[in-house]
Amino acid sequence: MATVVDIAVSAAINILSAFIFLLAFAILRIQPFNDRVYFPKWYLKGLRSSASHSGAFVRRVVNLDFRSYIRFLNWMPEALKMPEPELIDHAGLDSAVYLRIYLMGLKIFVPIAFLAWAVLVPVNYTNDTLKIAQLVSNVTASDIDKLSISNVPLKSQRFWTHIVMAYAFTFWTCRVLLKEYEKVASMRLQFLSAEGRRPDQFTVLVRNVPPDPDESVSELVEHFFLVNHPHHYLTHQDTSYFLDKLSVATHPSVSSFGLNSKGLGKGLVVCNANKLASLVKKKKSKKNWLDYYQLKYDRNPLQRPLKKVLLNIQSDISQTGFLGLWGEKVDVIDHHTSEIEKLSEEIEEERERVLKDPKSIMPAAFVSFKTRWGAAVCAQTQQSRNPTLWLTEWAPEPRDVYWENLAIPYMSLSVRRLIIGVAFFFLTIFFMIPIASVQALASIEGIEKRAPFLKPVIEIKFIKSVIQGFLPGIALKLFLIFLPTILMIMSKFEGFLSISSLERRSATRYYIFLIINVFFGSILTGAAFEQLNSFIKQSANEIPKTIGVAVPLKATFFITYIMVDGWAGIAGEVLMLKPLILYHLKNIFLVKTEKDREEAMDPGSLGFNTGEPRIQLYFLLGLVYATVTPFLLPFIIIFFAFAYVVFRHQIINVYNQEYESGAAFWPDVHGRVITALVISQLALLGLMSTKEAAQSAPFLIALPVLTIWFHRFCQGRHKSAFVKYPLQEAMMKDTLERARDPNFNLKPYLQDAYIHPVFKGGDDDDEDDDLSKKLETDSVLVPTKRQSRKNTPAPSRISKASSPSLSEINESIVKASIYSNRRGFGFYL
Amino acid sequence: MATVVDIAVSAAINILSAFIFLLAFAILRIQPFNDRVYFPKWYLKGLRSSASHSGAFVRRVVNLDFRSYIRFLNWMPEALKMPEPELIDHAGLDSAVYLRIYLMGLKIFVPIAFLAWAVLVPVNYTNDTLKIAQLVSNVTASDIDKLSISNVPLKSQRFWTHIVMAYAFTFWTCRVLLKEYEKVASMRLQFLSAEGRRPDQFTVLVRNVPPDPDESVSELVEHFFLVNHPHHYLTHQDTSYFLDKLSVATHPSVSSFGLNSKGLGKGLVVCNANKLASLVKKKKSKKNWLDYYQLKYDRNPLQRPLKKVLLNIQSDISQTGFLGLWGEKVDVIDHHTSEIEKLSEEIEEERERVLKDPKSIMPAAFVSFKTRWGAAVCAQTQQSRNPTLWLTEWAPEPRDVYWENLAIPYMSLSVRRLIIGVAFFFLTIFFMIPIASVQALASIEGIEKRAPFLKPVIEIKFIKSVIQGFLPGIALKLFLIFLPTILMIMSKFEGFLSISSLERRSATRYYIFLIINVFFGSILTGAAFEQLNSFIKQSANEIPKTIGVAVPLKATFFITYIMVDGWAGIAGEVLMLKPLILYHLKNIFLVKTEKDREEAMDPGSLGFNTGEPRIQLYFLLGLVYATVTPFLLPFIIIFFAFAYVVFRHQIINVYNQEYESGAAFWPDVHGRVITALVISQLALLGLMSTKEAAQSAPFLIALPVLTIWFHRFCQGRHKSAFVKYPLQEAMMKDTLERARDPNFNLKPYLQDAYIHPVFKGGDDDDEDDDLSKKLETDSVLVPTKRQSRKNTPAPSRISKASSPSLSEINESIVKASIYSNRRGFGFYL
Repeated sequence: MATVVDIAVSAAINILSAFIFLLAFAILRIQPFNDRVYFPKWYLKGLRSSASHSGAFVRRVVNLDFRSYIRFLNWMPEALKMPEPELIDHAGLDSAVYLRIYLMGLKIFVPIAFLAWAVLVPVNYTNDTLKIAQLVSNVTASDIDKLSISNVPLKSQRFWTHIVMAYAFTFWTCRVLLKEYEKVASMRLQFLSAEGRRPDQFTVLVRNVPPDPDESVSELVEHFFLVNHPHHYLTHQDTSYFLDKLSVATHPSVSSFGLNSKGLGKGLVVCNANKLASLVKKKKSKKNWLDYYQLKYDRNPLQRPLKKVLLNIQSDISQTGFLGLWGEKVDVIDHHTSEIEKLSEEIEEERERVLKDPKSIMPAAFVSFKTRWGAAVCAQTQQSRNPTLWLTEWAPEPRDVYWENLAIPYMSLSVRRLIIGVAFFFLTIFFMIPIASVQALASIEGIEKRAPFLKPVIEIKFIKSVIQGFLPGIALKLFLIFLPTILMIMSKFEGFLSISSLERRSATRYYIFLIINVFFGSILTGAAFEQLNSFIKQSANEIPKTIGVAVPLKATFFITYIMVDGWAGIAGEVLMLKPLILYHLKNIFLVKTEKDREEAMDPGSLGFNTGEPRIQLYFLLGLVYATVTPFLLPFIIIFFAFAYVVFRHQIINVYNQEYESGAAFWPDVHGRVITALVISQLALLGLMSTKEAAQSAPFLIALPVLTIWFHRFCQGRHKSAFVKYPLQEAMMKDTLERARDPNFNLKPYLQDAYIHPVFKGGDDDDEDDDLSKKLETDSVLVPTKRQSRKNTPAPSRISKASSPSLSEINESIVKASIYSNRRGFGFYL
Repeated sequence: MATVVDIAVSAAINILSAFIFLLAFAILRIQPFNDRVYFPKWYLKGLRSSASHSGAFVRRVVNLDFRSYIRFLNWMPEALKMPEPELIDHAGLDSAVYLRIYLMGLKIFVPIAFLAWAVLVPVNYTNDTLKIAQLVSNVTASDIDKLSISNVPLKSQRFWTHIVMAYAFTFWTCRVLLKEYEKVASMRLQFLSAEGRRPDQFTVLVRNVPPDPDESVSELVEHFFLVNHPHHYLTHQDTSYFLDKLSVATHPSVSSFGLNSKGLGKGLVVCNANKLASLVKKKKSKKNWLDYYQLKYDRNPLQRPLKKVLLNIQSDISQTGFLGLWGEKVDVIDHHTSEIEKLSEEIEEERERVLKDPKSIMPAAFVSFKTRWGAAVCAQTQQSRNPTLWLTEWAPEPRDVYWENLAIPYMSLSVRRLIIGVAFFFLTIFFMIPIASVQALASIEGIEKRAPFLKPVIEIKFIKSVIQGFLPGIALKLFLIFLPTILMIMSKFEGFLSISSLERRSATRYYIFLIINVFFGSILTGAAFEQLNSFIKQSANEIPKTIGVAVPLKATFFITYIMVDGWAGIAGEVLMLKPLILYHLKNIFLVKTEKDREEAMDPGSLGFNTGEPRIQLYFLLGLVYATVTPFLLPFIIIFFAFAYVVFRHQIINVYNQEYESGAAFWPDVHGRVITALVISQLALLGLMSTKEAAQSAPFLIALPVLTIWFHRFCQGRHKSAFVKYPLQEAMMKDTLERARDPNFNLKPYLQDAYIHPVFKGGDDDDEDDDLSKKLETDSVLVPTKRQSRKNTPAPSRISKASSPSLSEINESIVKASIYSNRRGFGFYL
């Protein structure tokens, strides 16, 4: 059992390392040559560009303004300045809502911590149980334990306090959860209805189109929707795919399990698209060189760059002579330009060839409708008699689509789910063994046993504290690095259709894993590692007891874990060490043009699949220890506050948003906090029954029942906002749009929205940009004041306020006209 | 432990009683004076009427045709004769699919029984374990046990047989389940699309219409749907309700929990509708008297019936003079006719008054659409931003609507569900105690202990057998009589909207109850009643073991249960003793006119809420004992076969269909068989692990996992056929109808379909008939040959075959035209 001194040492180490990280960050971030590492978001948004042509060289590389060094923690208040609506515009709803998780942590734990310290700590502290136990049986107990429930004697009437507090904490947590659910649901609906015209609003993804001997998939889709949605169907986009059915047909066992599109099929994609992909790559490289020479020529317009080129008559594409040593001298710019043209043609041919190949057509399509109403209807209804055919659902954003999984038939999905379920079960169970053994090794006794020669070193008080306070956390951390990748692969195999849903599923798995292996694993391996085998056979009634007893004993372990993972880890996050080093390495060795530099940036993204479950672990720890060891709560609060600031900064300045799911993850977040709540209640129940508080313990049974009921109530009340799209909203939006823009031609707008990236990405990078620009045409680009480079942007309220409020006014006018002059709405409809 | 002799005695008793019941039934059913008891279905269908005017009086009352007494079991093959499609037309899909449950029992258990007797019985029997145990420790074991798994020694390699058999049984059961699910789903869709035009196809029930200060519910509904479903909305019917809001407002605590409409509200309904209801009653009675006098007059046209009437000037409605002693003599027929007219006017006024009262309007409405497509869309989508407002779902059939529950707000529903959940938990748990004590009392030892003076009587071998074989079953049975009523009240309180869903929910509860109290209760109270308390605290790992050990010991108990409840009970069902007696009592004392006689009939109905869970108990017993004590299987098979014949007969001749849900209960049936399968697997697993078959037992763990996966697969594959209505079907049906009947005016057809029974039923009984006739206009009434009264009807294939095949042809033509001349569908749409 670690003492307060151990905790203090650990805290000192972690605070120090966090401080070092922050200091390093503060210095590095204001150096102009790191600008693309610490502010990539602004580059991606096009609001900032390399200032390579202005000022002295030194000033471009190193910041010489010493005043800025003094205000080295300035970024923190600045990160908090941007108001939420602007943040949503800037970084998307997903990011803004993600930050609310931290905020929710604060909202839950600050009042709980106050209450716990005001009530529970005095109640616990004014007992002598541990002191007596120490005297009688020589049990060591730290001062922390004196503040915890362990200090209350058996059968004490004081346990009533803990029960009342458990109710109070549950009530408060549920209250915050409900408010947040409401808020996020309304934010989501607001976001969906306030955002401009976007292809996914009109589009439905149709899967499992049945095979038809007479018609192609495309024809079949068109006919089906013309018949069944006659007034609403507009157009569709079938999704081509490189799938050699012949070669799959030779493996009937595989194809019947539908593994073709993923297992074999994916290999074949590479096979068939090999030529196309290599051509695209070649073209890209040529283009880069062209840019480079163009730049060179621009700087020195007098000298046209020349180079020796080996003209090869056999091949259309000539090769630059080896190291430019032989071959004919040509004008490089002209040469490259003509070669790029040639390549473009070839790529076009190849693409046509692939498109015409009937084997590459997937039985799935993106069907677009004339109105949002039509799309909402189609997405929410069943189309065909056989519920496994003609499956419809809202199309994800174009950038969110996970193309590889669009063609998996129902039976295969079902089998995959079973396989992954079993695989995950074994992964979770057997992962426990290495963690446990490493943690046992990392304890003082473990090291002394394995390496007796280290004994003198270890026995030094400081090192002992380090080992006890630091190593178990690190050991745990190391094990968790490779896990997200495995879980992501599992989710992909399971057949989800969008990157956001892949991440959500991975997050769920990761959370289960963390609970079982990190939380229960740490609680029980430390306290009862040898009993692991017997624990599996333990009674359902005994498990909460075992956990309840072990919980107070592991408080110090979790405090160090919070400090290592939560404090120092978050500080490490803001420093972005890995992207920093990689960027500079790339910059030195690879970057030739501005485009290369753009690509060398690695802004990263939020990483919902790992980030969110880790936050949830803190919720779990906070809720479990709130009644048991309130001493832990301040550590949690510091984590939430610090992480909130850091991630707000990162979201504003660094992370690149990969997709926008409109906060579709919130029901998961809500559900996990509920899980944590129930676990905390059961653990307390178990602990109470071992404390022989027979009178009071039964009063706790109602808590989990009420909590689960509350969860179901919330799901019924708010979940559909995250799954369905109300027709009223769709109709209002349609009406509004028709009134504002009656002559808009939707068909060409939607024509190319959903194209497989191989066809799109290959052609030209500019096209990509065109498309993404097209997507953004309606969403107002927020011009912020961020032209100077040394500060995070101050919010520009004027530009923001104008556009949405205008649309709000419009909307309310239309709404009013619909609801008051009810005879007159025929005009709109 | 009961021996084979006990079983034989019990079997003899039960077979005898079943035989007596059947004999009584065979004699009673062919007596003309019982015709309305045993063939009410035909009277209700209007295909049979009282033959009161033809033949001699004796022949009208007693059947003197002695040949018909010889063929006294003739009804059995006759019940089987009617083919399924005709049965569906005759008694509805619900009944036809209900019969398939018995058939499924046969399909599952006949092959299983063969396999078990061919493989498991020899394997079990060729061991000496029980013989040795008998010699060594004086354990008594019957011959039945020698056929069971108990006879296999510990650690035997023979257990592999049982495991392989468990897999085989599971596989076979799942196969049958899947086939049946497929079949029933396609029958349902066939039924829904083959049936004629019905109001519920076009109608959606809208609940939780938000209050609006400016508009009435009716206006609000109209505007909302005109705006949000502009092309499809046709009309609507708001549901009035007698709810005094003012008086509820004085009980805010009650109204906030939404108990008003049920608790307080219902009382108020009675209050406000008192006058209307009493007027309606009075009119009905007058009408009956009028019919009576009319009849009298018809028989004796010379004498116009006169009666003394006390003319009361104060009241509009004069009273017949007390016993006809004073007052003026008037022509009774004229008098009653004029009074009925007066009453009709009054009722009309009162009804108008109630309708105009704004307080009686419920925030719910039946909204009708122009097409089935429009209704299907509205029922499957979310309408408003707030998912607890404007809730839409398919309207139940008009006769299936449960009006009292239409106005419950979301929050209240949620709270009610919690309350009922908790209440049901306690009901289930505490019901166990009386059952257990009565069963203990009913055992030989129990009786001897409580009433030692009975000892000499009990010890007589025959009586002992009776007590052991009969009493426990009876005790169980008695306890279960009042339960369905309680469960039905619970479901009503929970707020379901249709009678069919009320019954489904009650059935689910009843099934859980039966499993916990009858199955587990019987298994564990007999074997371990004293350990009940300790059992609750038992480990999750130990519970299957305890059950597994107890299962083979209770085989004889369940065999007697099957015979009492299954064999004799079913034979009692066909005799219809209670309706028989009641009918004749009513006939003697109350019946005056033909109408009264009609009302004296009590055909009853299938009673899904109690019947189905009881069948499921047999599935559970069969599956659990298939591997353990195959001796039980023949008893189960006899039950299923016998019950199938009896209920087929009852459905054809007796039961009146109260509603038609289109076999919406099948997913429940499927799910319960799966539950039984999983329980049987866990019990076997527990049993195996006590048999120290450590090598083989782990192989069973995969079984429940696979079974549950299979269940989820089936639900995904077929459940939506029972919940949603595919748009393709709707569109096809719409197109077909538009082609066949282009000038049909839907609005008047739908106008009065959904009227609260107080308004409808009160006006005139004829109106009811009109309505139900209107509903049936499109569904072809099947004229069968049943005009002679002595036999059940022979199926008339010609009349049946014509109409559906015609519509099938039509449909296929339209289908073909849609799919081949695809350009030409504009004509239909």
